[in-house]
Amino acid sequence: MRWKCICAYDGGKFHGWQSQKNAEAVQDVIEAALASIFEKQVRLHGSGRTDTGVHARGQVFHFDGDWAHGPERLLAAFRALLPMGIQIKSVRRVSSFFHARYDAKGKKYRYFIFQGTADPFEMAYCWSINRSLDISKMQLASSLLVGEHDFVAFSALNGDVMEDTVKNLRVLSVSSRGRHITLTAEGSGFLYKMVRSLAGALVNVGLGKLEPSDLYQILKDRKRVPLIHTAPAQGLFLEKVVY
Amino acid sequence: MRWKCICAYDGGKFHGWQSQKNAEAVQDVIEAALASIFEKQVRLHGSGRTDTGVHARGQVFHFDGDWAHGPERLLAAFRALLPMGIQIKSVRRVSSFFHARYDAKGKKYRYFIFQGTADPFEMAYCWSINRSLDISKMQLASSLLVGEHDFVAFSALNGDVMEDTVKNLRVLSVSSRGRHITLTAEGSGFLYKMVRSLAGALVNVGLGKLEPSDLYQILKDRKRVPLIHTAPAQGLFLEKVVY
Repeated sequence: MRWKCICAYDGGKFHGWQSQKNAEAVQDVIEAALASIFEKQVRLHGSGRTDTGVHARGQVFHFDGDWAHGPERLLAAFRALLPMGIQIKSVRRVSSFFHARYDAKGKKYRYFIFQGTADPFEMAYCWSINRSLDISKMQLASSLLVGEHDFVAFSALNGDVMEDTVKNLRVLSVSSRGRHITLTAEGSGFLYKMVRSLAGALVNVGLGKLEPSDLYQILKDRKRVPLIHTAPAQGLFLEKVVY
Repeated sequence: MRWKCICAYDGGKFHGWQSQKNAEAVQDVIEAALASIFEKQVRLHGSGRTDTGVHARGQVFHFDGDWAHGPERLLAAFRALLPMGIQIKSVRRVSSFFHARYDAKGKKYRYFIFQGTADPFEMAYCWSINRSLDISKMQLASSLLVGEHDFVAFSALNGDVMEDTVKNLRVLSVSSRGRHITLTAEGSGFLYKMVRSLAGALVNVGLGKLEPSDLYQILKDRKRVPLIHTAPAQGLFLEKVVY
């Protein structure tokens, strides 16, 4: 029996999604709960990694396990076992052909920025920038990056990677309400640190250090430049995985 | 020279506002920063206590200290010294007659409720109730409690207290947006655990365990009953102190 789960987690409380030595990853904590529920080791498969500090509201994973009591009681078992920083939002039985990673058709991320000093309750969930940003320039710049492009200049990949660096960025938008700015990015797939690189670049446009046309040129040149900063992890949320 | 400060803090990270033995209170942490800025012990005076776990967005305190570099640099010194869970939002020089506690004319609190299981980012800042509440009954009940009354039934005071238990509750309102409910309470003063008792009572109205008219009767009887629960601290925010 294969199960598909949607989960949320506070990235500031764990060392990334993926299991690693000497640090507690979200995956490890969930696998420990699964081991306790199924009384044996159960391996889970996520839609992809999130870096240390990145949050998720809609990460997806699957696992195989024989469970006769229905999804509601499986959800209740998770809730009883997981710490406050990790929450399983839904559990659904799926076909044994479903794969959380290989079947993902796209992902949606949000990046939160606060112009000023965020209050203590938001500080861990946004990038506080003590300046005001030019939103319309950021909006113009973001519109220039939408579409199918080679995004290697907006990634932290080194040259010799085998991955296809052409991705279809279906949405890249900038909205603001008061001192809060939200970036939304949706696409077929994202390169390593791509959303944070886009956020860092757009902030430099908002600060006047880069012009919107510069971003387009950097995209076309396919070469990362120092003004493409990687924005801090704590502002980034994996909102949704699309299947 | 007397200084008035407005501060915000995450109540979940400290042991209440007021200094106490064997536990770190918000006041202690700020006084440690003051000692480092002024190179001597400086006592601060808050507008009043908040209990362990209660948050503040607008707590006020004053202190005396000779500082020749203006409020902006004092604010910067605080920011450099205080941990992420405490934030000084403003510093202003005031007359030496100003007193944060004795001059307070009123306070404004908010209490946040989530109908369902709050996500990991909100969990520490609301009361998650896995049921849906009858908002219009809660609104009716809250309107019956507005005004000048003896609120002793909605406090955690024991009988022999000397405090005047008549308070003017100028605002008690209930609003909702989706699964979020916000209670707002504003008044001349509040008794010990009064806002949390009002929140606990209103939730029991929302759950159908108490009728709005029951709350009015309990108020008039001036006697706390078991259905007046004290709502959890983590949902409560001191929003503002009025002078």
